[in-house]
Amino acid sequence: MAPLTDPDLLFAPETRSLCRALYAGVKDLPIVSPHGHTDPRWYALNEPFPDPAQLLIVPDHYIFRMLFSQGVRLEELGVPTLDFPTLNGAPVETDGRTIWRRFAEHYYLFRGTPTRLWLDHVFEHLFGIGEPLNPVTADRHYDTIATLLQRDDYRPRALFDRFNIEVIATTEGALDDLKWHRAIRDSGWNGRVVTAYRPDAVVDPDFEGFPANLDRLGEITGCDTGTWEGYLDAHRKRRAYFKEFGATSSDHGHPTAETANLSEAAAGELFNRIRHGSDDERERRLFRAQMLTEMAKMSRDDGLVMQIHPGSWRNHSPAIFQKFGRDKGFDIPTRTDYVTALKPLLDCVGLERDLTIILFTLDETSYARELAPLAGVYPALKLGPAWWFHDSPEGMRRFREMTTETAGFYNTVGFNDDTRAFPSIPARHDIARRVDCAFLARLVAEHRLREEEAHELARELAYTLAKKAYRL
Amino acid sequence: MAPLTDPDLLFAPETRSLCRALYAGVKDLPIVSPHGHTDPRWYALNEPFPDPAQLLIVPDHYIFRMLFSQGVRLEELGVPTLDFPTLNGAPVETDGRTIWRRFAEHYYLFRGTPTRLWLDHVFEHLFGIGEPLNPVTADRHYDTIATLLQRDDYRPRALFDRFNIEVIATTEGALDDLKWHRAIRDSGWNGRVVTAYRPDAVVDPDFEGFPANLDRLGEITGCDTGTWEGYLDAHRKRRAYFKEFGATSSDHGHPTAETANLSEAAAGELFNRIRHGSDDERERRLFRAQMLTEMAKMSRDDGLVMQIHPGSWRNHSPAIFQKFGRDKGFDIPTRTDYVTALKPLLDCVGLERDLTIILFTLDETSYARELAPLAGVYPALKLGPAWWFHDSPEGMRRFREMTTETAGFYNTVGFNDDTRAFPSIPARHDIARRVDCAFLARLVAEHRLREEEAHELARELAYTLAKKAYRL
Amino acid sequence: MAPLTDPDLLFAPETRSLCRALYAGVKDLPIVSPHGHTDPRWYALNEPFPDPAQLLIVPDHYIFRMLFSQGVRLEELGVPTLDFPTLNGAPVETDGRTIWRRFAEHYYLFRGTPTRLWLDHVFEHLFGIGEPLNPVTADRHYDTIATLLQRDDYRPRALFDRFNIEVIATTEGALDDLKWHRAIRDSGWNGRVVTAYRPDAVVDPDFEGFPANLDRLGEITGCDTGTWEGYLDAHRKRRAYFKEFGATSSDHGHPTAETANLSEAAAGELFNRIRHGSDDERERRLFRAQMLTEMAKMSRDDGLVMQIHPGSWRNHSPAIFQKFGRDKGFDIPTRTDYVTALKPLLDCVGLERDLTIILFTLDETSYARELAPLAGVYPALKLGPAWWFHDSPEGMRRFREMTTETAGFYNTVGFNDDTRAFPSIPARHDIARRVDCAFLARLVAEHRLREEEAHELARELAYTLAKKAYRL
Repeated sequence: MAPLTDPDLLFAPETRSLCRALYAGVKDLPIVSPHGHTDPRWYALNEPFPDPAQLLIVPDHYIFRMLFSQGVRLEELGVPTLDFPTLNGAPVETDGRTIWRRFAEHYYLFRGTPTRLWLDHVFEHLFGIGEPLNPVTADRHYDTIATLLQRDDYRPRALFDRFNIEVIATTEGALDDLKWHRAIRDSGWNGRVVTAYRPDAVVDPDFEGFPANLDRLGEITGCDTGTWEGYLDAHRKRRAYFKEFGATSSDHGHPTAETANLSEAAAGELFNRIRHGSDDERERRLFRAQMLTEMAKMSRDDGLVMQIHPGSWRNHSPAIFQKFGRDKGFDIPTRTDYVTALKPLLDCVGLERDLTIILFTLDETSYARELAPLAGVYPALKLGPAWWFHDSPEGMRRFREMTTETAGFYNTVGFNDDTRAFPSIPARHDIARRVDCAFLARLVAEHRLREEEAHELARELAYTLAKKAYRL
Repeated sequence: MAPLTDPDLLFAPETRSLCRALYAGVKDLPIVSPHGHTDPRWYALNEPFPDPAQLLIVPDHYIFRMLFSQGVRLEELGVPTLDFPTLNGAPVETDGRTIWRRFAEHYYLFRGTPTRLWLDHVFEHLFGIGEPLNPVTADRHYDTIATLLQRDDYRPRALFDRFNIEVIATTEGALDDLKWHRAIRDSGWNGRVVTAYRPDAVVDPDFEGFPANLDRLGEITGCDTGTWEGYLDAHRKRRAYFKEFGATSSDHGHPTAETANLSEAAAGELFNRIRHGSDDERERRLFRAQMLTEMAKMSRDDGLVMQIHPGSWRNHSPAIFQKFGRDKGFDIPTRTDYVTALKPLLDCVGLERDLTIILFTLDETSYARELAPLAGVYPALKLGPAWWFHDSPEGMRRFREMTTETAGFYNTVGFNDDTRAFPSIPARHDIARRVDCAFLARLVAEHRLREEEAHELARELAYTLAKKAYRL
Repeated sequence: MAPLTDPDLLFAPETRSLCRALYAGVKDLPIVSPHGHTDPRWYALNEPFPDPAQLLIVPDHYIFRMLFSQGVRLEELGVPTLDFPTLNGAPVETDGRTIWRRFAEHYYLFRGTPTRLWLDHVFEHLFGIGEPLNPVTADRHYDTIATLLQRDDYRPRALFDRFNIEVIATTEGALDDLKWHRAIRDSGWNGRVVTAYRPDAVVDPDFEGFPANLDRLGEITGCDTGTWEGYLDAHRKRRAYFKEFGATSSDHGHPTAETANLSEAAAGELFNRIRHGSDDERERRLFRAQMLTEMAKMSRDDGLVMQIHPGSWRNHSPAIFQKFGRDKGFDIPTRTDYVTALKPLLDCVGLERDLTIILFTLDETSYARELAPLAGVYPALKLGPAWWFHDSPEGMRRFREMTTETAGFYNTVGFNDDTRAFPSIPARHDIARRVDCAFLARLVAEHRLREEEAHELARELAYTLAKKAYRL
């Protein structure tokens, strides 16, 4: 039987030997994971992971959204309702094996998706499984994984080493006390886990609990978040605090890429209105827009790399949001403009050569039309890798095809896995490396690049560019 | 000389043997044609088709738009003017052979287009022609086809059997009496021809004769279409009537995907204003939007699969519209939003697991950005195949490349030919099957899919998914 | 060592022999360059070109934008500031060799870009250089090129002949006296250099010096540009004057594709307001829109082919614009609508069979959705080749993949190089021919086209279509 993950995975037959040669040079490079959502608690406590379903199914919105789309209820997959365990409504499944079997029954739905590639990779390379998952093999998979998860060499720190992770960034909100990061540091463990500054909850007036969040920000920092100056100072203090725990970047998940560059006075007045609870949608938008520019200016000053992740309509279904909360697979991409939206920010700091702003998109139409032309000229801009729904073989290939000719490779920043699925990290990096090698092999095969250049680039894309861009 | 349609048509050289193997498993599957525009009268009367030009050229807007773009007048191709035969303006050509010769002279214009593939397929497989069409061979083609069309085994029902059609859907307006469908049923013929409910003329206030159409709808159903309740009841009655003639779906060709979900009272008031001829463009748009949601609610109740075909700017040239009427090749795609537009409808019925809404688009930018993410999570949504201008090898390939990774194969609904060109139906299905086999072969060649899965998927895409999605 | 430009450049390995065969039939065809920005002074005076840096680096915004994006200052690359040589700010580098070395250090940034392919092609084919450019070889390259540029057979006219240019168009503003074109004509040289009419400075109220430009237009033509009629007459006279110097086309670089078709009276009133300096942004937009239609009507009358180049946000960075002026790599594409924007113009002249309007885009999403459907039906419309950032192997491939199936090949107009980089012209045409041959080879390999058709098409795309569409 063929292995779950063929050694030639993602290599086109017509350029296979070149793909293999390029890949051989990068497959064992350490993993640099500059942006993601793993839980620092794992590394701090180093406890065994829970059962296979709780580890691999319940928290993975790629997985349960697909099953939900085909009629499986989220409760049947163990996704907790907000009122859980009061069981108002259908009971939430808690038995790992039952959830696993349900998943296995529907695993065929993932044919042709990256989730399938990631999971098969994990099954084979992490858990040593050789047969495809289906209803017949479901229990054997479950038992194998459950058993291994109890072993010490499957605990988080052991996996961190096994995965050859050189450094990994987590993402914490501005109000987080970073206690798990402190615990990691205090533990004497030598794994490098850094945080990143994500201030959405205190810069977005539409965020749940925004006023209370600002109060809390004031308490934590001792700054008067009732004034614009105090509010900005509070950010500066938190950024400095995050830097103490290794942060080299901030992260901004706005609905759009809109920016503004108001005068000091106008910005202060806007803050006052927002602070007093303005429900004018334009003002709230303008405040978010202004805050991107403020964050960029702080990045210019303190050196944090700024990441902008716009264009997701969060919680598109109110019924699901009310019942299950955030991050349930109902975040849908929207058309996103950059050329107009970023102009105020770029007019302010776009020509800075020591500032790095990394742009992501869920709207692939902006790759060739807007993002590559912008990143190909503004010194402050770089392009983040294909993101979220586009973090897939076809998505990554389109990213390269549509950005390279205008922005080159060196205005991109390598790969980041952006995941909370810790066991899948090697799979994700492996697949990204394979896709890039295949892209480079195609360029060589068509004599658009020399082979020695492709070898050099393969290393840059797999390792060096991420380290350099994120200052890690 | 090479055949007009090579046995390896559309198979990439680098995956050819795999393409052949996959295709061998699907090429003889019956045709399920769940959406199209053939004329039920053909099956009812079973008369011989007219001359080659009247059959293949005059009604095919793909063909005459291309010749028109290169300076040939529509009259020269036999396209009737609205005042025909008064000959106000240039005379309309009526001689089939003259039209055919003119077409043959310009056949080179279709190089690289799907029309060329379809026609060569028809010439070879239906009419046994082995030489390319050009000015020299034009008369021989014409004679061969004209002669065959007179034979009994080239009449509609014989072709239906020869084409191995298991079921075909036509599309009729809400006011249609379905007399040809009744005649088919009464004839005792065993071919399965079903209708589909297309209510544009009675839900779109901008449709020609809208007020009279509503009056007529009232007469036919005995409902009071002067009231909102009566109007909705009339729809329910017509839907039930269409179901008697096999309908399993409705079809909605709106300018945009905009939906609304007004309160009962507000919807009733809106209807009153529309019924009294409101010329407020926003109200007319809102009414169309509300009606999509009403139709979705009826589909939830009566089980008709709902098809939404938005985004065509109909009759872009007023001069052509005035002279020749609708469907003259001047329908132009427009940028189409789904994420915002569909939200009211989705908030209402999007989570229903027994409802099927099939979305089509003419704006390929929505595939990966909007449609695949939506269909990959909302149980009520499925993706229709690449449509109209995109029903072509590159178009179908882009559809798979941009939807599969997020929505999977199982949130798509197989192929539909959407054609009024009856003789081209086998060609269209054959080409779709070939493109899908080539796509699957590429996945297998890159080890993204196992070969046995590809065989299974080839059958699903060619046959099973269409039957299942359309409940046929 | 491999040559800088492999004989199989851009040929896919799986269709290589077919690519070679097709390319053999077109590689030596004369160059028809119907649209570009070379300086007619070169051909008039036939002086030697300046040093390698001044020839190849300083004027090429593709090059300096990339280096600027990576932190190199424009002054370091010799790009003159507007106040040069007053040296307000950093001094501008004037030493060619220093600039060249700086460029060579950063040449790796261009991996995967068309600039790299063009330059390597020039190095090898024009200057006989066999080794890659890098810091070690920089001086040798420089010396080789500098030496050759002093030779008589490297002067403009000699290169014109060596490049096998059959005809080349330059682009001049409406106020240009065409003295260099006159000098060329008077010189008795047999090279065919024609002009093109570019009236942006006198049709766009936002253009620098617009009112003075209109005054000047009046002086030159003897028309009263204080009145609408006189203003239009002035255009007619200038167009006639440009035709005397070989012009067969006009060129229009508007921010959008917006058109208008006002009544004679309304247009006249609008002109009056604009002439008196209206600062109403809507009026200024409307005037630009109206002028596209006016130019189209004049084209209908005088036979000049009309080119519309919309969708570039010029001078996106005000800081760069103020310091360095126009054309410094800060022109960024924007989302561009055609279906709505062009309707007034198309309603007016879109059905004209003797008019040719060539549409370009920087927004690739419009290829399949809008441009191919429009050009595939309106007799007056043709599609210009992939433009600017998209004038690249992937960009040209996407153009063919997304336009051919709906518009066919014959509603496109071949290649134009659009360049001011004279030495790169053969490279650009060679690469375009290779990309087209590779595209055709793929069609043949998949049996979508017969081989003899591909040979014919290769010639059309490389040579015939451009001559025909531009009436050259």
